[in-house]
Amino acid sequence: MRVVVLGTSSVYPTKDRNHQAIALLYGPEILLFDCGEGTQRQMRIKGLKISKISKIFLTHWHGDHVLGLPGLLQSLAMSNRTQPIEIWGPEGSKEKIKHLLQTYEVSFPFRIIVHEIKSKKLQIIDEELKYEIYAAPLCHTCPCLGFSFKEKDKVKINTKYLSEFGLTSDPIIKKLQEGKNIIWKGKKIKAKDATFIEKGKKITYVVDTCATENITELAKDSDLFICEATFLNELKEQATERGHLTAKQAGSFAKKAKVKKLIITHFSQRYPNLRPLINEARSTFKNTEAAKDFMEIKL
Amino acid sequence: MRVVVLGTSSVYPTKDRNHQAIALLYGPEILLFDCGEGTQRQMRIKGLKISKISKIFLTHWHGDHVLGLPGLLQSLAMSNRTQPIEIWGPEGSKEKIKHLLQTYEVSFPFRIIVHEIKSKKLQIIDEELKYEIYAAPLCHTCPCLGFSFKEKDKVKINTKYLSEFGLTSDPIIKKLQEGKNIIWKGKKIKAKDATFIEKGKKITYVVDTCATENITELAKDSDLFICEATFLNELKEQATERGHLTAKQAGSFAKKAKVKKLIITHFSQRYPNLRPLINEARSTFKNTEAAKDFMEIKL
Repeated sequence: MRVVVLGTSSVYPTKDRNHQAIALLYGPEILLFDCGEGTQRQMRIKGLKISKISKIFLTHWHGDHVLGLPGLLQSLAMSNRTQPIEIWGPEGSKEKIKHLLQTYEVSFPFRIIVHEIKSKKLQIIDEELKYEIYAAPLCHTCPCLGFSFKEKDKVKINTKYLSEFGLTSDPIIKKLQEGKNIIWKGKKIKAKDATFIEKGKKITYVVDTCATENITELAKDSDLFICEATFLNELKEQATERGHLTAKQAGSFAKKAKVKKLIITHFSQRYPNLRPLINEARSTFKNTEAAKDFMEIKL
Repeated sequence: MRVVVLGTSSVYPTKDRNHQAIALLYGPEILLFDCGEGTQRQMRIKGLKISKISKIFLTHWHGDHVLGLPGLLQSLAMSNRTQPIEIWGPEGSKEKIKHLLQTYEVSFPFRIIVHEIKSKKLQIIDEELKYEIYAAPLCHTCPCLGFSFKEKDKVKINTKYLSEFGLTSDPIIKKLQEGKNIIWKGKKIKAKDATFIEKGKKITYVVDTCATENITELAKDSDLFICEATFLNELKEQATERGHLTAKQAGSFAKKAKVKKLIITHFSQRYPNLRPLINEARSTFKNTEAAKDFMEIKL
C-alpha cells in the first residue's frame, strides 16, 4: 500500500505546489482523494496510470479540491474506458457533476456513479472485502467531508507454532485462517492458537475544516493522518473564520486521536518556508512531516 | 509585445507539455488565448500575473483548451478582482459558462461578460484604439474559432526629413502625425512627406481544425502564425477525421498566407521527439519552430 501526495497547496497553486489530491495505491486500484486542477498531469509526471482509478472521494466543491475532475474524466473518456467510475462527495455533488458534464464538449463511454454522503458514516466494502471507507462531516464554509480508509484486519498464521506440529505448507492451513480447528497427523490444532490478527492499516485525510471533535473520532488510531495546516497558530482566528486549521491544531488532533504519523498539508502560499509550521505541529505531536508534491509514503 | 506559450500538448497533458494556452502581453494587459487545465499555475511559474488578464479568447470547448478557465476565474475571485472580465468564444459559450459557474462553490465579485462569435469576422477595438481582434470559424468536431490579433498601424515621424527644416522637438510635430500639414519657420511641411506608416504586428492563433481556406485568410501576412501540427502527414487521413492538421499542412498554410514566422504546437503525445514534425513543416515553410512550454517570442 502506497500513498502518493499529488498536491499540497491551498487555494492558489504555486510553482512548487499543485492543488490538492492524494492517490492511494492499493493492489491493482488507485483510490483518489480530492482532485484539484492539474491532478491528471501530476499523476502523469509521477508515472501513475489514471486508468487504474476505481473510486474518487471528494471532500468538498471548492476549486482547489475538484477543478481537476472534469479533465481527469475527459482523459478517461478519450482512453475509451468502459468500466464505471464511482465518485463520493458531500450533499449537492450530484447537481454539481450534472453541471460539470454539461460544461464541456465531451461524451462519456462509461457510467459516472455519484454518491452523496449525508449520514455520518459510510462503509464501502469492495467485492473482496479488503477495506472500508469512513466519512465524517467537517466544519468548513460549505459542506465538507473527511475520509478514512481502513484496511480490514488480516488473520495471519503463526508459522513457528505450526512448525512444532511439523506443519509448514499445506492447503489445510487455510482452514485455520478461516477460524476452523484442524487435525494434523492425529493432533488437534486450534485456530485461535495457530493464528493471530494483523491489524489493517488506517489512513485518514482531513482538509478544509476548523476544529471539530469529528476529526478525532475519524482519525482515531490511524497509521497515517494527513491533515491540513493552512496557517500558523498566530492566525488561528483567521483560520477558524475561513474554516481551516493551524499547524498546532493539526498536531493536537494527531495526539488526541493517537495516530502513528502526521503529515501536514494544504499550506497557504504565505509560507514558502514550512519550518515554522512543522515545528509548531511537532511541539504537540513529534512524528510530523510536511507533505510535498510527489512525496510517497509506504505502509 | 511578447507572446508567452503556456501549453503545447494536445488532449493529454504530458510531463513536459501542459494543455493549450497563449498569453499575449501588450502594454499593461494580458490577452489570453485558450485556457487549458493548469494554465493559472503555468502563469505563476512563468511569473505572469493573472490579475493583468483583461480578455480571454476561447477557440472551442474541448477540455484541453478550456479546463483551466474555472480555476483561473476562481483565483481572480479570491484575489478580490472587481474589474469585469470579457470572454469571447464560439456559439454555445454562454450556456457552457452558465454551467461552469454552477459547478463549484464560489461567487464572483466581478462581472463575467461572455460574447458568442457567430459571424465570420470580429473586431474589438480597445478604448485607446490600439488593436483589433479577428475571428474566423474553423473546421473541427465542434464549433471552433481561429483568432488574429492585429495591432493598429502607427504613423511615425521621419526625423531625418524634419531635421532638414531644423525641426527636432516641438509639440507641433503631433499635427503631422494627425495628417495635418504645418508651417515651420515660414516653410510648409507636408504630413505625407514628414511621416511614414509602421505596420502594426499581426499574430494569428489557429488550433483544432482540418484544412480550410479560412486559415489562409485569417493568417494573411501575420508576423507570427501559431498553428497546430498535431500529426505527421503520414496520418493525414486520421488528422482530417479528427479535425486536425498535419505539420506539412501547417507549413503550407504559412506559405500561402505569406506569414513571417510559423510556430507549430498542439502535438500528439505520440511524438516525444518533434524533429520529424519540424522538418516536415520546414519542407514547405522554412522559418518554422516548434513551440515549447514557457517559450517567449518578442515582436
